[in-house]
Amino acid sequence: MSTFPITDKTEITRLPKRGVYDKDVVYAILDEALVCTVAFAVDNQPFQIPTGFCRIGDKLYIHGSVGSHYMRELQTTKSPVCISATLIDGMVLARSAFHHSVNYRSVIIFSEPVVVTDQDELYKALEVFTGKMCPGRWADVRKPTAGEWKATLLLSFEIKEASAKVRTGPPKDDEEDYDLNVWAGVQPLKLQRLPVVPDPDLKAGIELPSYLSE
Amino acid sequence: MSTFPITDKTEITRLPKRGVYDKDVVYAILDEALVCTVAFAVDNQPFQIPTGFCRIGDKLYIHGSVGSHYMRELQTTKSPVCISATLIDGMVLARSAFHHSVNYRSVIIFSEPVVVTDQDELYKALEVFTGKMCPGRWADVRKPTAGEWKATLLLSFEIKEASAKVRTGPPKDDEEDYDLNVWAGVQPLKLQRLPVVPDPDLKAGIELPSYLSE
Repeated sequence: MSTFPITDKTEITRLPKRGVYDKDVVYAILDEALVCTVAFAVDNQPFQIPTGFCRIGDKLYIHGSVGSHYMRELQTTKSPVCISATLIDGMVLARSAFHHSVNYRSVIIFSEPVVVTDQDELYKALEVFTGKMCPGRWADVRKPTAGEWKATLLLSFEIKEASAKVRTGPPKDDEEDYDLNVWAGVQPLKLQRLPVVPDPDLKAGIELPSYLSE
Repeated sequence: MSTFPITDKTEITRLPKRGVYDKDVVYAILDEALVCTVAFAVDNQPFQIPTGFCRIGDKLYIHGSVGSHYMRELQTTKSPVCISATLIDGMVLARSAFHHSVNYRSVIIFSEPVVVTDQDELYKALEVFTGKMCPGRWADVRKPTAGEWKATLLLSFEIKEASAKVRTGPPKDDEEDYDLNVWAGVQPLKLQRLPVVPDPDLKAGIELPSYLSE
C-alpha cells in the first residue's frame, strides 16, 4: 500500500497509534468529507476558509469566485497552507468522564496553492466536485458558459505531505472502572441526506430525477 | 440584539448579505457544532487542530492532554488563532451547474489562547463540554480524579472578534434558466445521532439510561 512520508509537520506525536499515513485511507476520508478548512497565514496571523472541495488523484481542488478576497489572497501570496477535513463517526461514552472520546477520521495536509489555468483540468474538477456534492447531477444541469468559467477561480493543492488520524471502536476505561454501574458504549453519528425539498419556483411537470429519489 | 463589531478580519466581503454579526446567531452555531478547527501559525506556517469544543458565555473552550504537542504549542506561543466551525444544512441544486451552492452556517473567530488555571472554570467547562457531546451524561459517570484533572489542559478563547456566514433557502438561478426542464431544489443534510452500540465489555444488568433511549 502506498504511504505518505512522515515529516516533522505530519508526524502524529499525541496517541501515535491513531496516526495513519496510507494514501488509500487519507483519500477515502477526503472523498467522503463534504467540506474542508484551508488555513493560511499573513504576517503570522492565521485565517481559515471553510469550503467544499474535491480530490482527483494526488490533488485537492477548491474553487470560488475570481472576486473572492480569500481566493485572491491565496492566488497572490502562494503562501503555505494547512488543510483539514474531519468526519465525526460517534460519541464514545466511557464509564469515566476522563475517558470519554470521539470516533473520528480526520486528515491534515500541508501544501501550497496553484492556480489552475488548464481548461480541461478546470472542467474536470468542477464535474467531479458537482458529482461529489450530488452524484448524478452534472449530466442533468446546464453546463457553465464561457463567462461563467471565466468567473471561476480554481486552485489545486498537491497532496504530498499528509496524514490521517482515526479513532474507532468502543471506549477504553481504566481496569477498575469496568465494574462500575455505568452504561458504556458508542453513539454513532452520521451526516445523512434527507428527502429533497423542491424549489417553490419549480416548473410544473418536472419529475424528481432517479439519482435523487433512490 | 447584541452584535460583534465588524473588523478588517471579520468583514464578509464576498456575498456580504450572508454575513451575520449577531451574537445570538454566532453562539447558536457554536453550540450546535460538535467540532471546530483551531488554526495558528509558526513562522507563517499554518497548522490546524480539529477538536471538540464548548462555549460558555463569551468564551470558547478546548481541552486536551498536557502532553499534546499542539496544546503546548498554543500554551507557549500564545499566538493569534483563527477558529472555525461549520454546519452543512443542504445541497442547493440549481438548474445551472454554476449556481449550485450549499446551505451552511459557519463561524470564524479571531482570538488568542489563555490557559485556564481556575479549578472551578476547568470543572465547569468539562461538564458543559460533556453535556454538549452527550446531554445528560455528566451526572451519570465517574468524575475526574485529582490526577486526571492535572493531566487535562484547558484553553479558553475570548469571543470578541467573530462573524457568521449563513446561506439558507432554495437555489437562485438566472432568470432565463427557470424555464429549463431541470429539477431544482434542496437536498437537506443533517448530522444524526443513531441508535447506540453497547460496549462489548458492558457489565451485565446495566440498562440503557433514559437520556440515550429517548
